Amino acid sequence: MAQSEQIVRLAKLVRYYILISTTEAGSGHPTSSLSATDLMSCLLFGGAFRFDTEHPEHPNNDRLVFSKGHASPLLYALWASAGRVSEEELMTMRKFGSPLEGHPTPAFRYAEAATGSLGQGLPIGLGMSLNAKYVDKLPYRTYVLLGDSEMAEGSQWEAMQLAAHYKLDNLIGIIDVNRLGQRGETMYGHNLGAYEKRISSFGWETIVIDGHNIDEILAAYQKATQAAGRPVMIIAGTVKGKGVSFIEDKNGWHGKPLNKEQLKQALAELGEVDPSLRGEISPPESLRLPAQQPQPVQKILYLADKPVATRKAYGNALVRLFPKFPNMVVLDAEVSNSTFADLFKERYPERFFEMFIAEQNMVGAALGISRRAKIPFVSTFAAFMTRAFDQIRMSQYSDANIKFCGSHAGVSIGEDGPSQMGLEDIAMFRTILGSVVLYPSDAVSTEKIVEEAAKHKGNVYIRTTRMETPIIYKTNEEFPIGGAKVLKQSDRDAVAVIAAGITVHEALAAYEELKKEGILTRIIDLYSIKPADKETLRKAANVTQAFVTVEDHFSEGGIGETVRSLMADIDVPVHSLCVRKMPKSGKPGELLDYEEISRNGIIRKVRELI
Amino acid sequence: MAQSEQIVRLAKLVRYYILISTTEAGSGHPTSSLSATDLMSCLLFGGAFRFDTEHPEHPNNDRLVFSKGHASPLLYALWASAGRVSEEELMTMRKFGSPLEGHPTPAFRYAEAATGSLGQGLPIGLGMSLNAKYVDKLPYRTYVLLGDSEMAEGSQWEAMQLAAHYKLDNLIGIIDVNRLGQRGETMYGHNLGAYEKRISSFGWETIVIDGHNIDEILAAYQKATQAAGRPVMIIAGTVKGKGVSFIEDKNGWHGKPLNKEQLKQALAELGEVDPSLRGEISPPESLRLPAQQPQPVQKILYLADKPVATRKAYGNALVRLFPKFPNMVVLDAEVSNSTFADLFKERYPERFFEMFIAEQNMVGAALGISRRAKIPFVSTFAAFMTRAFDQIRMSQYSDANIKFCGSHAGVSIGEDGPSQMGLEDIAMFRTILGSVVLYPSDAVSTEKIVEEAAKHKGNVYIRTTRMETPIIYKTNEEFPIGGAKVLKQSDRDAVAVIAAGITVHEALAAYEELKKEGILTRIIDLYSIKPADKETLRKAANVTQAFVTVEDHFSEGGIGETVRSLMADIDVPVHSLCVRKMPKSGKPGELLDYEEISRNGIIRKVRELI
Repeated sequence: MAQSEQIVRLAKLVRYYILISTTEAGSGHPTSSLSATDLMSCLLFGGAFRFDTEHPEHPNNDRLVFSKGHASPLLYALWASAGRVSEEELMTMRKFGSPLEGHPTPAFRYAEAATGSLGQGLPIGLGMSLNAKYVDKLPYRTYVLLGDSEMAEGSQWEAMQLAAHYKLDNLIGIIDVNRLGQRGETMYGHNLGAYEKRISSFGWETIVIDGHNIDEILAAYQKATQAAGRPVMIIAGTVKGKGVSFIEDKNGWHGKPLNKEQLKQALAELGEVDPSLRGEISPPESLRLPAQQPQPVQKILYLADKPVATRKAYGNALVRLFPKFPNMVVLDAEVSNSTFADLFKERYPERFFEMFIAEQNMVGAALGISRRAKIPFVSTFAAFMTRAFDQIRMSQYSDANIKFCGSHAGVSIGEDGPSQMGLEDIAMFRTILGSVVLYPSDAVSTEKIVEEAAKHKGNVYIRTTRMETPIIYKTNEEFPIGGAKVLKQSDRDAVAVIAAGITVHEALAAYEELKKEGILTRIIDLYSIKPADKETLRKAANVTQAFVTVEDHFSEGGIGETVRSLMADIDVPVHSLCVRKMPKSGKPGELLDYEEISRNGIIRKVRELI
Repeated sequence: MAQSEQIVRLAKLVRYYILISTTEAGSGHPTSSLSATDLMSCLLFGGAFRFDTEHPEHPNNDRLVFSKGHASPLLYALWASAGRVSEEELMTMRKFGSPLEGHPTPAFRYAEAATGSLGQGLPIGLGMSLNAKYVDKLPYRTYVLLGDSEMAEGSQWEAMQLAAHYKLDNLIGIIDVNRLGQRGETMYGHNLGAYEKRISSFGWETIVIDGHNIDEILAAYQKATQAAGRPVMIIAGTVKGKGVSFIEDKNGWHGKPLNKEQLKQALAELGEVDPSLRGEISPPESLRLPAQQPQPVQKILYLADKPVATRKAYGNALVRLFPKFPNMVVLDAEVSNSTFADLFKERYPERFFEMFIAEQNMVGAALGISRRAKIPFVSTFAAFMTRAFDQIRMSQYSDANIKFCGSHAGVSIGEDGPSQMGLEDIAMFRTILGSVVLYPSDAVSTEKIVEEAAKHKGNVYIRTTRMETPIIYKTNEEFPIGGAKVLKQSDRDAVAVIAAGITVHEALAAYEELKKEGILTRIIDLYSIKPADKETLRKAANVTQAFVTVEDHFSEGGIGETVRSLMADIDVPVHSLCVRKMPKSGKPGELLDYEEISRNGIIRKVRELI
């Protein structure tokens, strides 16, 4: 009983902290935090959770993801009750510059990832669990605090399937079923059986409890840690606002802090609180990860006269580079024979994870994996990366290190038609803070930039092409991030043609044709779209009278707009060839012509400008 | 028995058409089409499906959505067997200019929507069912052909929850469980019980059958049409490639047509086919929709001295305009008290649908609703629109008419922090072909542009602000799509400041301050970002020496890049103030200053340029 009593006192302290910090901030989500307080206090202070509080990065720490990110006051209050956050610091919550933001970000050292866009925590936790079980082979567990309202998100059900499929018995979800969403009751209210039925049908072990009964909660964690072969979901009936009678289970209190009057009243109700109380957290087993020594890699080898698709070179690169980057993990969404991630799967099956047709979960899992110091390479069609834009967006706030590869870029995929064509992916990835966006034109440069991507710290997007394309580069050339290649130049170039990927080949063909007519063009391979090589472009602007950008991508947010932004302070007109007409099925060559981004389109444009 | 025999003969004809058309095209997905052939032949020609083939738009037609869009050869073959597509036309499949594209698009008159990005069909079907049951109140049913592999997509499970919640007994899904995905077996293979268990737990009626037993299939449709209160899922065990022995149930045949030799062999196996055979489709009941007369609307009324948030004006506008646009349907994703869609919900509850925290399904449903000639207004936080980018992307290929409203734009939402901030939504919606992107700065202009959006045919995105902002405009001003407002001008303007939304107010404050210093600026409210008013900008370029764009949005793909693209052929430097630094919690004013997009940031920039 002593343990329960201690936890009751700690939970009271946590509630105290939640209330004073949100009232001080004048905003925040106290009621959403209060409903999960007993669940989380039991987890951290009841012995189940094992964490070295001095070393949040300890490889064998259990992980705790707040999928219901708006319960951040609870996250901060828990760690304050563990003695790792002072009351003074708590009172800076939501203030400019405080690491205690409105929703958790890694600025707070105990936040596993930035959350707050709902439905993303279970995939992140799944990634960490996959890593623990199959990559690190360490016994740590991943706990995910879930809201009931966010269980509507499809991404959670993707994680549900994948977790059962991968037998992740080291993944424990806890649903805080407090009945009330933001604007009213959830679909199932307090019908715990509704969650139990659905989640168990997906192959999870389920434990249904009263989320405010300390003994039941502790027993649930005890049971959960004995799981074998299946992930575990604790489904807890709770009361929103629990602990403050006048806000308990009441609609209209979502995201509302108590005012000073109400706070006084609530604290009186709470009763005496001992701010010197400190919750103890069990330490993890001090297991170490074996150090993995990078090994030398094979040389890049492509025959000069044999075209190879850049999507194939991507697959080759993953295989070739793995010895040098033993932290690589490769994920794909049911298209690995198209993206060529399957080459890696065949060679290193223990480091490849099939994520099935569930891109949101794949990206969330990649985030979790990257937060565990691995380098995830994630692939699908460029078009389907848009399925995970919210997850990609959130990763930028999580100090992530994910390498995305989108294949089948552009209209040049041909007959499959627009549903399969990536035409907005450059725009999407450009919006990600600090992202790197690379679009190689041949197999050699693809292999080089995959290595640059692996070395780089931060999110990288690599765009690959479906069709086979000729080899342009020699294997001793380098392709630094932020660089560009000038393939053709003279000091009498009339126009600079700036291309990437498939259009580099079109541009080279156009060059030859124009040269016959006495028109010299500078051909630039802008393989690094972000960051881009302003210096090379400036030099071209000094010589030429105009730029023509040409891309197999929509106009908005693509290479044309990139170059215009770069050239904002330089006086050179930038004309943009891109996909402007409704795309459709057809042969690749036909479609490139139709969209005027083929050699013919380039020639026409250059002639027009001269 | 006669009916079964007829269907067997028709199914053979359908298989014949699938094989010859894909071999002719040299690409396509015959095996994925063959597995569903018996299921679909029974549906169309067995009496369940009611459709006026002369009038695909008949309001009481049953609807058929091919969620597994790659089975397009089956879709075309079915309609050919119904006599609506000639064999000659079938042989144009996948060729440039043919309405028979690689994946269905509305270019083919019997395609309900463009599909091909998996997991999107059930949400689209759900929208049509919602419309049938609650808006049109017509007895038509919506059938959705689903692949088993795509059931991994979370979006399907969002639809699964919402369909049960809304008791859509007029929605019938058919899963073609052929065991094989693109690169191998699905998670559950031929374990029909796995689907049955999961889907029934979500509240659907399930019917498990042999997907090649004509009698079982017909009985299943019969049973499905008697559903009461619950949606129905027919779970059919099938064989990929059924009908061609050497490709049946074999991995490695996804997306592969037969070559000429193999086709010969397959046709020999198929046996004699009667190409003059025509399948009969039952006609629908000729019910008409009552004509809805637009009614006059109230006038816009805002007190000049009382600030109102544009997000609130959005809600007001929905209520005010509904009588004039009786085809409006409003959807929101659990944030209607934030987006103010709840004002409409309160006033016209029968036309409002709570879609819960499931944005992908919400957008898919909106597409289905728009295809049934309604005007869906869809709202959530701007940031969470990214959750549905793939659905938004696909809607551009579906001749859609969806009005999106993203609230809580920018860093100016304040303390909630970056997870809730829309900073890439302008970029995202700009990439949509033919989209309109509007960003009103005050309540009056918001109301005006909501009406413009309702009148416009095509996708529209409206970006709204969290905080209250002053009234700028008079109610007799017009805000046409493609227009801009010049709020301050003189013939000695040094710099033009181009803003939208929240930054218009910052720009107006900056104007006053700069004027005191003797610096005149032209202040332009670019409320229509796409299309944008080039003429107004050109006039400003004639007078001023530089442009400063200022937006509460990332730099990539936003207003700055929009203006630079517009001004590509005009010699005026465009400087861009936007969100460049990692956003964080803080007061709105602090954050605007921090990102240098506040009045102070604008003043500093203009001074720098002078």
